[in-house]
Amino acid sequence: MATTKYLLDESQIPTSWVNLLPDLPGEPLPPLNPGTGEPAGPDDLTPIFPIGVIEQEVSTEPDVEIPEEVREVYKLWRPTPLIRARRLERELDTPAHIYYKYEGVSPAGSHKPNSAVAQAYLNKQAGVKKLVTETGAGQWGSALSLACRLFGLECEVFMVGVSYDQKPYRRAMIETWGGTVHRSPSDRTDAGRSQAAHESGSLGIAISEAVEVAAKADDTNYALGSVLNHVCLHQTVIGQEAIAALEQAGEYPDVVVGCVGGGSNFAGLIYPFVRANLREGKTTRFLGAEPAACPTLTRGTYAYDFGDTVGMTPLMPMYTLGHDFVPPPVHAGGLRYHGDAPSLCALVHNGLVEATAVKQTDAFAAAIRFASAEGIIPGPEPAHAIKATIDEALAAKHSGEERVILLGLSGHGHFDMSAYAAYHAGELEDLEFSDAEMQEALDRLPSAPSIA
Amino acid sequence: MATTKYLLDESQIPTSWVNLLPDLPGEPLPPLNPGTGEPAGPDDLTPIFPIGVIEQEVSTEPDVEIPEEVREVYKLWRPTPLIRARRLERELDTPAHIYYKYEGVSPAGSHKPNSAVAQAYLNKQAGVKKLVTETGAGQWGSALSLACRLFGLECEVFMVGVSYDQKPYRRAMIETWGGTVHRSPSDRTDAGRSQAAHESGSLGIAISEAVEVAAKADDTNYALGSVLNHVCLHQTVIGQEAIAALEQAGEYPDVVVGCVGGGSNFAGLIYPFVRANLREGKTTRFLGAEPAACPTLTRGTYAYDFGDTVGMTPLMPMYTLGHDFVPPPVHAGGLRYHGDAPSLCALVHNGLVEATAVKQTDAFAAAIRFASAEGIIPGPEPAHAIKATIDEALAAKHSGEERVILLGLSGHGHFDMSAYAAYHAGELEDLEFSDAEMQEALDRLPSAPSIA
Repeated sequence: MATTKYLLDESQIPTSWVNLLPDLPGEPLPPLNPGTGEPAGPDDLTPIFPIGVIEQEVSTEPDVEIPEEVREVYKLWRPTPLIRARRLERELDTPAHIYYKYEGVSPAGSHKPNSAVAQAYLNKQAGVKKLVTETGAGQWGSALSLACRLFGLECEVFMVGVSYDQKPYRRAMIETWGGTVHRSPSDRTDAGRSQAAHESGSLGIAISEAVEVAAKADDTNYALGSVLNHVCLHQTVIGQEAIAALEQAGEYPDVVVGCVGGGSNFAGLIYPFVRANLREGKTTRFLGAEPAACPTLTRGTYAYDFGDTVGMTPLMPMYTLGHDFVPPPVHAGGLRYHGDAPSLCALVHNGLVEATAVKQTDAFAAAIRFASAEGIIPGPEPAHAIKATIDEALAAKHSGEERVILLGLSGHGHFDMSAYAAYHAGELEDLEFSDAEMQEALDRLPSAPSIA
Repeated sequence: MATTKYLLDESQIPTSWVNLLPDLPGEPLPPLNPGTGEPAGPDDLTPIFPIGVIEQEVSTEPDVEIPEEVREVYKLWRPTPLIRARRLERELDTPAHIYYKYEGVSPAGSHKPNSAVAQAYLNKQAGVKKLVTETGAGQWGSALSLACRLFGLECEVFMVGVSYDQKPYRRAMIETWGGTVHRSPSDRTDAGRSQAAHESGSLGIAISEAVEVAAKADDTNYALGSVLNHVCLHQTVIGQEAIAALEQAGEYPDVVVGCVGGGSNFAGLIYPFVRANLREGKTTRFLGAEPAACPTLTRGTYAYDFGDTVGMTPLMPMYTLGHDFVPPPVHAGGLRYHGDAPSLCALVHNGLVEATAVKQTDAFAAAIRFASAEGIIPGPEPAHAIKATIDEALAAKHSGEERVILLGLSGHGHFDMSAYAAYHAGELEDLEFSDAEMQEALDRLPSAPSIA
């Protein structure tokens, strides 16, 4: 029998995270204090993050050791499987070899616990009692609730309004692990009250609410599920395991495809491969798939902007649709963010990473095609990457190449079946980002040095 | 690091299924044709089952080869992991070693595809175009929809009314794999129309509807998700893999615990171990956990009864609460069945297998305790087995024994979060089975030889 799954032993869970920052080409662009315009330092972060997290955020070490306590928790579901999509290949009649790294086997159903566990541990070490955060699709909120439960911390989650309404079962999941959930915008914070008109909410607003709560309480910290360096760092267990498992298969990818919201899943998947490109002369292509309704990398502006909506965070150098852009309620809630991880944006800006925008109906059609061949029903977020993967596999067929494609399947769709039901009923709309919206966003960017 | 997960290689997917029938003690009790009172033969089954299934149903071979095409599909998720519940052990402060065999990694989220895939294959071989079935919690219906998609068959599912209402996302899952779903009782069949008064439905009614559709159409067959010999047979991949993985761990179970609805999950888990008891003098205990609201094994009568509500099936020798018993709408929809697999009932009757009835609030409390320690949120069905497992572990603590406990974790609870939400809100009721109900059921048993 031909092998389908490539499994690693628990001893092959990585012992360190890959920090790509020292290898990034060009001068690093620091985040800026929005008041002074000066580079933001560790002091800007201490009100909301523990020292362990801040050290990782600014680390220049190429490899950061994973604490043994974190690896112990990883063992509950890691290493995750690498699966050869033989049935999908057959169905596409492509010479391409398609492998997918499946993070949906974690208890929360996505890659998010990779960072949640690390952050909960570092906060526990610092004597923090409670973590507060935002969540889009609910994946990060449930991951942090799980992680907090495993390390004995309290957990409070501001959930983007539209997802709160669409995904009551994610809320029940967060509560099952002991966390509490508030619909955002809420009336619990100044930030929430100021954004009450944006009834459907956004990740940016929810971040503002969570940061505000964390900044005001002594024993409470904030935890971010994407964008920042330390989150991307934690996710690199994905790419490292993928390299080891592909070695078992005797292959190396020609192209790596993942979905991009804040960027941590994609960064975690590709950074170990990007480093191999930079250090070892490998020539792998990297392709990030984002929603056409929130096309940060493909249509955004490369500039300094706030990470949140209200403007509480340091200014970050990134592709942005404008910090007060409220993306339309596409079902891939995890991809509704106006910016992207600065490290990933730098790679896109340098031409080392490509991006493509995918319509949500095309994403769901691809997801159903995948589910019909491989069984697993993907989350709407990786469905965008599946669409891009299928396009790559068909291009390989067209050109007759035996291209090796690695797909990041960041999570399952078990909590997204209302979106599938809407798709089956023909009720999913394709929402477009307009030029007028982009122009308006540009007009409202904070004043900061140009970087483009 | 201490090992947490015991993983087998794909080459260790079993090559045959364990047929316990030839090893069952005592004279086998045949199913009876309800019209003649004579033993039902293969001819009674040909209107709804293909020859391959019938051969397996009556096989006296102790080992039945698994077709290569079926093993190929199993490879999409099998072998499933065996996990040492070290955190739960620590939390219970028990000397017991708790292992759980996790079937929730299948695309449908439970053990059900183990048989669905085999049945779809055997029907495809026989030239059948369409399979029709019933589903309770939706697990069997989604598993069969998946299996039909993988083998190119149509699939039609009658879903128990109360589950249809409680679990719209299971319906979307069935539809994502191409199946169609009807709420049962429906107006599409005589059986459904005759039971319209039982608005919440039952597995028995849904079976009647599906059997009727299959019996009336030439190119359409029926597929049952539990109870019958061939279904229990297909599920024995679970127990066989558990034996191999426990060998890796250097252990053998003192007690094996699983939940019982129709019995196939529990049978699949324990039959390979039961055979070892019977043949090799092992002394493992077996404990089936069922809902207190539908306590077939612990309070039912051992007698010949119909498998369905309307009375279309052969009479089967089993513990029964009466074929027209409509269980209350407990959230463990997969355990709402009036009878149990005849082979399993024979083992209970012979004292080789024990049973215990668990209240649903106790089951959910145990499930949340499990989720808080191990991460995974269990389905409400295995939650009953978790409660029994925790009791066994605490008994081991009390007696100071290093008992090895194997728990069958038959599926995840991702489609059951409304039940968790109800539990969190304090809205879950404990429904009791009354003596009066049992007495009424006895009065309505079909006339057949006594077997008790």
